[in-house]
Amino acid sequence: MQINENYLKLKSSYLFANIARKVAAYGAAHPEADIIKLGIGDVTRPLVPAVIDALHKAVDDMAHEETFQGYPPELGQKFLLEDIQKYDFANRGVQLDLDEIFVSDGAKSDTGNIGDIFGVDNKVAICDPVYPVYVDTNVMGGRAGAYREDGHWSNIIYLTCTAENNFLPELPGERPDIIYLCFPNNPTGMAIDKAGLKKWVDYARENECVILYDAAYEAFIPEDRDLPHSIYEIEGAKECAIEFRSYSKTAGFTGVRCGVTVVPKALKVNGVALNALWARRQTTKFNGVSYITQRGAAAIYTPEGHRQIMENIEYYRNNAQVIAAGLNEVGLRTWGAECSPYVWLQTPDHMKSWDFFDLLLNELQVVGTPGEGFGPAGEGYFRLTGFGNAERTKEAVERIKNYFGR
Amino acid sequence: MQINENYLKLKSSYLFANIARKVAAYGAAHPEADIIKLGIGDVTRPLVPAVIDALHKAVDDMAHEETFQGYPPELGQKFLLEDIQKYDFANRGVQLDLDEIFVSDGAKSDTGNIGDIFGVDNKVAICDPVYPVYVDTNVMGGRAGAYREDGHWSNIIYLTCTAENNFLPELPGERPDIIYLCFPNNPTGMAIDKAGLKKWVDYARENECVILYDAAYEAFIPEDRDLPHSIYEIEGAKECAIEFRSYSKTAGFTGVRCGVTVVPKALKVNGVALNALWARRQTTKFNGVSYITQRGAAAIYTPEGHRQIMENIEYYRNNAQVIAAGLNEVGLRTWGAECSPYVWLQTPDHMKSWDFFDLLLNELQVVGTPGEGFGPAGEGYFRLTGFGNAERTKEAVERIKNYFGR
Repeated sequence: MQINENYLKLKSSYLFANIARKVAAYGAAHPEADIIKLGIGDVTRPLVPAVIDALHKAVDDMAHEETFQGYPPELGQKFLLEDIQKYDFANRGVQLDLDEIFVSDGAKSDTGNIGDIFGVDNKVAICDPVYPVYVDTNVMGGRAGAYREDGHWSNIIYLTCTAENNFLPELPGERPDIIYLCFPNNPTGMAIDKAGLKKWVDYARENECVILYDAAYEAFIPEDRDLPHSIYEIEGAKECAIEFRSYSKTAGFTGVRCGVTVVPKALKVNGVALNALWARRQTTKFNGVSYITQRGAAAIYTPEGHRQIMENIEYYRNNAQVIAAGLNEVGLRTWGAECSPYVWLQTPDHMKSWDFFDLLLNELQVVGTPGEGFGPAGEGYFRLTGFGNAERTKEAVERIKNYFGR
Repeated sequence: MQINENYLKLKSSYLFANIARKVAAYGAAHPEADIIKLGIGDVTRPLVPAVIDALHKAVDDMAHEETFQGYPPELGQKFLLEDIQKYDFANRGVQLDLDEIFVSDGAKSDTGNIGDIFGVDNKVAICDPVYPVYVDTNVMGGRAGAYREDGHWSNIIYLTCTAENNFLPELPGERPDIIYLCFPNNPTGMAIDKAGLKKWVDYARENECVILYDAAYEAFIPEDRDLPHSIYEIEGAKECAIEFRSYSKTAGFTGVRCGVTVVPKALKVNGVALNALWARRQTTKFNGVSYITQRGAAAIYTPEGHRQIMENIEYYRNNAQVIAAGLNEVGLRTWGAECSPYVWLQTPDHMKSWDFFDLLLNELQVVGTPGEGFGPAGEGYFRLTGFGNAERTKEAVERIKNYFGR
């Protein structure tokens, strides 16, 4: 009897759990402290009225035999798939068949579970810094190799993102099989333009790589910017890319759980369509998303719902811009904020990112996320999020300005 | 670049998808046909009023900043964990810590995903016939070996269940590492008594096996029967068993998606607590269950909610008993129905189970599930479910009685 030994290689526990523990300890020791949390990327605005109405109606459907819904179709309700097909893709010039779109309980599940359909021996390229789930799930899946003292895994190809390359990764020197990309990026908030993304698509096609493209923050790209919301806006991407999308940040669904994964039928590995493999994975190890949730998600594609969610997105992005402007005023360098809810900042005087975390928590009662938690190249950087209340965010910025502007 | 080659070993598609295709084809060719579906194990009764009320209240919570809920705790909301701890376990004499209980989006996901935490080389024992997900997920995970002409996989130890052993499996001749058990059983509907289950717990402890115990149908055991609702009612089970539970059949949640997995901290493999591995798996590759859903699930533990769901369970079980009684009247042998929503029947004259499926569909417009779909030992048997409308179920039984009673 054996366990999956790869699990034992993982470092003790998940980044945000560590932060939560530190904050809880501080709060317990200082019950009077007025802590402002700009750490985890969790939304705070309530669901919009159009979604609330749709959820109530769907609950009522479940109360009557004639409209009751049993097992959902494992791959998504047709009404939602059709909305996604039209509003998220066709309206941006991307034609997808309904069976290329998969509704799930969230992008975290899908970016983790997608590893199931790939061989263990594939070589993976991952940005550094990065959303920790990409790395951790590859450790669990046996693709990471051994943990090295420098904080990297021996078998992962790292795409380093620093101020020097404006946090846009360069093509790898060594050919990977699988490439994780996320734009607008978490944690750096940086977006990629079409020419920049085309370089990756061309590289993947030439080198027969699969790009796993996380577009969870695409809704934060202002409409007047000519930036890609989907990798499929780039020619040839259907032959080399899987895309993950999420309602979490787009519609405030972090507590509702709904995401979307696109696996085009043109994407083949050694002649095998990955679409069929993912369909098989999901029909066998997943049972679809709550009917109620899917009705709620569909409501964001109505004119009302769309207008309402865009107001929230604007609210969060505006918070990020307030943070960035305030930090810049006192000489701190920042990235992101324009096309994302995130502000990525360089710590003053090369301070270690966990030290900066402690300083903000202990001196200013502001919680952020240490860059090092996203990978070794994040050392010396720090993430603040625009997901807080606007007044509280301004208050946090004032505290930071007062402290660092002295 | 390689795919997970194990996926290519799987037979074309999932049992219930095949059935749906056959039924759709028949319906298209005979638009006037009055088809009664007693095939898939999907509920048909609407959610009970207590659950509906709780869902509406939870939706309202999501509409206001003060009560809005973001990311749920990945392992379950405390209010639901406490209800499960008390009503599902403590009230049956089983003491569990809250962090031994994991709330998920359903038992199908968990029984599939649990394979992540085990080594690939473990030997798996599975009943035949069986819920197909146990086999298919082990094929995907690389533990099944090669598919053989007899319908078995070369590396799986099969626990054959037939009329001869009253569909209760015997201890295996060869030692497995992992043993899947499900009681009351799907598809046979048979329950196990405490002495029978103790044999398995003792065997697993002596042989250092892990039992994966699927208790999805425990709520169908009448309270006046002295049968185990949880494997932890058996002494020593905490050291050798993981238990899966579900709100799908208990509370009509097939379309709402909520399940529970218990991994006791006493369960260790080579000194490693599986509880910690599953917690790591779920916090990394899953993001918790919708707050709204968890509020709905918690409502079944109120006195009102409990009474209401038990009425539905009684309704379904009564349907199963009506089916069994009708079939017995015309000389067909049946099992199950007493402690489950399922009737398992022997086909007349050793008819092949897919032939019997075609006969019921074409001649009587009744849909069931061929036993062969659950494994080779299911050949010659057939499953009907009590999840239909009571009147329609009686109508189906009349059709069967008229046909076979001639």
